[in-house]
Formats: sequence, C-alpha cells, structure tokens
Amino acid sequence: MQIAISLYGFGNVGREFVRLLNRKMSYLKSRHGIEPRVISVVTRRGGIRAESGIDWPVLVSLANAGTLCEQEGFVGGAPDDLDRWLPPEDSGQVRVLVDATWSDLSTGEPGLSRLREAARRGCHLVTLNKAPLVADFDGMVQVAREAGVRLKFSGATAAGLPTIDTVRVSLAGAEVRSIEGVLNSTTNYILTAMSDNALSFEEALRRSRALGLAESDPERDVSGMDTAGKILVLANAAMGARKRLSDVKVTGISEVTSRQIAYWAVQGRTLRLIGRAVRTADDVSIEVKPTPVPYRDFLAQVTGDGKGVRFTTDIFGELTIVGGAGGPSAAAGSALKDLVNLARAVDGDQGLIP
Amino acid sequence: MQIAISLYGFGNVGREFVRLLNRKMSYLKSRHGIEPRVISVVTRRGGIRAESGIDWPVLVSLANAGTLCEQEGFVGGAPDDLDRWLPPEDSGQVRVLVDATWSDLSTGEPGLSRLREAARRGCHLVTLNKAPLVADFDGMVQVAREAGVRLKFSGATAAGLPTIDTVRVSLAGAEVRSIEGVLNSTTNYILTAMSDNALSFEEALRRSRALGLAESDPERDVSGMDTAGKILVLANAAMGARKRLSDVKVTGISEVTSRQIAYWAVQGRTLRLIGRAVRTADDVSIEVKPTPVPYRDFLAQVTGDGKGVRFTTDIFGELTIVGGAGGPSAAAGSALKDLVNLARAVDGDQGLIP
Repeated sequence: MQIAISLYGFGNVGREFVRLLNRKMSYLKSRHGIEPRVISVVTRRGGIRAESGIDWPVLVSLANAGTLCEQEGFVGGAPDDLDRWLPPEDSGQVRVLVDATWSDLSTGEPGLSRLREAARRGCHLVTLNKAPLVADFDGMVQVAREAGVRLKFSGATAAGLPTIDTVRVSLAGAEVRSIEGVLNSTTNYILTAMSDNALSFEEALRRSRALGLAESDPERDVSGMDTAGKILVLANAAMGARKRLSDVKVTGISEVTSRQIAYWAVQGRTLRLIGRAVRTADDVSIEVKPTPVPYRDFLAQVTGDGKGVRFTTDIFGELTIVGGAGGPSAAAGSALKDLVNLARAVDGDQGLIP
Repeated sequence: MQIAISLYGFGNVGREFVRLLNRKMSYLKSRHGIEPRVISVVTRRGGIRAESGIDWPVLVSLANAGTLCEQEGFVGGAPDDLDRWLPPEDSGQVRVLVDATWSDLSTGEPGLSRLREAARRGCHLVTLNKAPLVADFDGMVQVAREAGVRLKFSGATAAGLPTIDTVRVSLAGAEVRSIEGVLNSTTNYILTAMSDNALSFEEALRRSRALGLAESDPERDVSGMDTAGKILVLANAAMGARKRLSDVKVTGISEVTSRQIAYWAVQGRTLRLIGRAVRTADDVSIEVKPTPVPYRDFLAQVTGDGKGVRFTTDIFGELTIVGGAGGPSAAAGSALKDLVNLARAVDGDQGLIP
C-alpha cells in the first residue's frame, strides 16, 4: 500500500520522523506491506514538495540540515494552502497529513482549522500536535467520522507510553473508571531532581533545560497545562467525558518547594505531577496537581524523564504501564505506529500476525 | 452487528464469559454496535444449542447451575461434530468459536483439529485455550489466513495483562528485542508466599490450592510449562521466532527452597518465575526459569497472583506493564475484548473513538 504523506512541521520531531521512516523502509514494506512517500514538508512560510515523493536521500539530508526555508527546492506559500501541499485527491494513494506543528491549547489554532479541512478533503490524520484535540475533541472526531477518514493521535497523549491504544484495544469492552498518570517528562525530571539531589525548583529547571528536556519556554510543562491537555484528551477519548480544558483543575509545579518534598519523604511519599480523570456517579472529574505518592506505588517509581499511567477498569482491575522512551524519537515512533495501524484499518485488518 | 457464538468449554471461565456477556449486553450494543448470541454451549459429551441463540436468562442460569449434561436441553454428541454445534454458514451473521477448553500442550489436541476445521468453515476464532497455538502457531495462523478468518488469543497469553495487543498495536512498527515476564499467577503466588511468609514450597502450594488459585493438578503451572507456552506464543507472534515447545528451556519452581530465597534476599533480589525471549544475532532464544530479580525492578514488585511483562524495542525502549486482574473474570474479559476487536476488524475499523 502506497501512503502519500504531507508532513507539517519540521522541528526535532518532524525531522526524526523522516529519519525513522527512511530507516524502517524495508521493514515497513516486508512486514506491513506499506510504502510511505513524503510528498511535502511544510513549515510556517512554505515548504518543499514533489508530487511523486521527495527522494529519500534528499529528505534525510534536509532532516540533517538547517532551517528548511534556506534549502534548495523551498517554495514560499501559506501552509493553509492545502491545494498546494496535500497529495492530490485522485492519486489513488492513501493520503495522510502528519501534524508535527505547535498550536495554542485554548484555540487549537493554527492546527485545528487545517486538520479539519484536510479531513474534509479525505486525508487521514496523524497528529502529534495535541492542541486541536484539546481545544475541540468532539468536533475533530465528528469531522473525521463524517469524512470517513481515520484520526490517530498516539503522539499527542504521551507518545512512547501507550495510552490511547491501551484503552481502545487492550481494554476493549471494559469500562474505564479512572486514569491517572505521570504524563510529562520535563516536570517529572524536575521533581525527581529536586527530590534526589535536593535541588531547588529553579536549579532543577535549569538542569532540565541544559539537558534539552525543557523547551526554551517550559511554561506549558511547568504550569501543568501539557499534562492537563493529555489527561483531557484521554478522558474524552476513553471515558466519553465531553470536557473542555476550562473544566480541568490545574496546579503546576512551580510552587513546589524542597521543604514540601522533604516533608513528604518523611511520610514515605514522593511528589509526582499526576493528571487524573475519575468517573463519578454521573460525570468525570479531571484534575492535575503535584500529588504525594507512596514509594511502593508504581507511579512513584517513574523517575527522571520517565512516564507512567494507571487505568482502573471494571473487568481488568488496575493496569499500570511504565516506560516508553521519551524525546523526539519516541514521538516520531508513535507517529509511525499510528501510520501502521491506520494502514491496517484502511486495508481491512486481518487481525492476524503480523 | 450480530455475532453468533459457539462456546466450547463450560468450566469457570466459560461460565464467567456467559455472565459477562449478559452483564455487558447493552454496553456492547450502544458503544460497539455488537449483539452477541450464544448459539451453542459445548462440552465433552454434548451440549445445548438453539439456532436463534440460547435465551439469556436460560444461559445465565446454566452458568450458575451444576454440570451441563444434567441440565434441561442437553443433547449428547461429539464436540467435534461441527455441523451440529457451529452456527450455520448461511446465517449472514459473524460466526465465532470461543474455545475455553483444555488441550494438551504438546499435541494441541483435542482443540487444534477442531479450531482448524472451524476456521476452514469460515468461523472466526477466539481462543482462551493456549495449547493449539503452543503446538502449532504457524499452522494456526496459516489456516486462519487461508480461510480469511480472524484468530484472536489474548486469553491464551496472560489474559488480563495485555501482551499480544501491546506488541501488535501499541508497539506497531517497532522491533521487539526481548520479552520477559511474570506470566503465571499460581507460581508467582507461591514464590511470594515463600518469600514473605517464609513458607516451604509445599506449604505455599497448599495455600494457593486452598485459595482456588492452583488447579487440582497444578503440574502445568509449577513445572513452568504454562509460562513456557505463553512466552513461546508471544515469541512466535511478536518476534517471528518460529519455535516449538521443545526449543524452550524450562525450569519450574518445585526445586526452589526457602534457603535459596533467603540467600537472594540478602543480595537484594527476589525470585520470580520469568519467561524470557531474547533476539540474538540470527535467532530468538526462549527460556523459563526462577530468576533472581533486583527489588527495584518492576517485575520484582509483581507480587501475589499478579502478572507483569516487559518489552524492549528499538524505538520505544523499555515498556513495562503490570496488573490486569487474574482469575476467570479476567480470562472471560480477555475473550470479550477479542470479540470487540474482532468485530471492529470485520466491520472495517473506523479508527475513531469509540
């Protein structure tokens, strides 16, 4: 199956996605019968496009080069000009927009409008950009359903840590009663460093930046809003919560002090920034806050830039998942995973191995 | 979608499966559009059958009653007489054989021949019985593929703990380098009891029997063969190992002594019966043995009748999954989950929520 991809966003994750596709080419062909081609790479001011697919050596060298707009073949143009950037509708190929851009969590823009329009044009969606789903989950699902396209977003809900797959497939048939997790690497690194090395919040933040974990503006992480976005999307997707970001009570970690951490340590607990969605009698309550977790709890043992999640269900009791590498390579990997599962669904999944 | 089910086996798991289906009826309809009907319940000497589906109140009362052959409506007949027991081919319904019987691990019989024949007749397969897959994994996959039916076996590879889903969906696109897990509840209960309560192997085994964990003949558990079957199926399914049970080096727990456990405790380790499959240069090696695991390791923290598994992959690093209730209800739940995912695949999965 030939898959024509428009890749939006060419930061660390977009570039890693290109390298990963290139590396996995023969594996994807032999094991899954998939032949991906990147038709266009699009950034804010324009992009590079080749109707039959950009040559792989060129793509990889672009991924390893500097700013895209300084490269050969770059054409200026608005990213929202989908006629220009999407694979043509009559190509007979499976067409996918992979969104690795950044959008505002409240409005979902500029990603939201673009993804909606691409869906209406019959493009399947794989988004690493969580904002469109945070801003309007139900709307995105509805647009995709009406257009008959698939909407995949593993990379938007903790990437390397399987969350949405777990609910959808591994817990199919079960009712999810609660989801709680350490869903943001940067804040977990900071809390672990404060605890293990007795650092202040500011020192730990500085260190996480030095390691390249925290982004240059780490506000979305530190404020808890990144975690809030993830747990919100999970609650909407897995528990039918129908909530908006404004329904989530969010406390970040910037007020956490070494003294608090020491206090809880004496009580046998460690602070984790936990996003939690719990089904109540007739609603779902969603909250993000620094939470003292007993040392024996699996979530307490998620250290450094790790992630972990726990689901409680009616049939399967508690299920805890820990790990899944962090950083751009796992994010790129989750987009690849979505692509494989999307291809299976489009092709009529045989439910067999592979 | 109407699903016509032939349920083979009416022990604890088969009965719990019936109760669970009954309890989940309206949920399955509203959320997944599935209407299951149990056409027949088949045991060794015959069964009960109703072409339009056995009435649910009758089914549930059968599940709560004694031996099936003493119940009203029971008809004698060989279980392999598929003409008699399977839903009719021209029914227009999705037909599924759910296998909750017991078979021999070496030969896979009597389940293997029956499942093969049912597949050839166009029945999808959901098996909680691992033996047919242990005995001839490649053959089972091939028969299913040729017949164009789905083969689902979550309940055969650690049931409530998602293993095969994780590899197939959550780790799609990644190469699995190793799988290691605590995959058998009974032996883990025994090892934990020996360690925590300083019991001898015999005392711990007696206790697990008293709790109804160990079967009346716990040999398959204690010998490590149950774990061997599970890790073998996982290695074949997830790593393309193409191995047979005779390729697995198996050491059970019957020789484990309190003294060994005390020795390892001093070294900061606890004994777990680990099934492990590791990719080597050009092969996959599979082994089951009591293994000293450092306390900090997540698998060491799988206590009592718990289960846990760790996957190592190229893209996502290490992923550990712990939990998933044990016992008949989780096994039944895993068959239900397979049914839902099978229905999605048959129906052309929309890849959306729900």
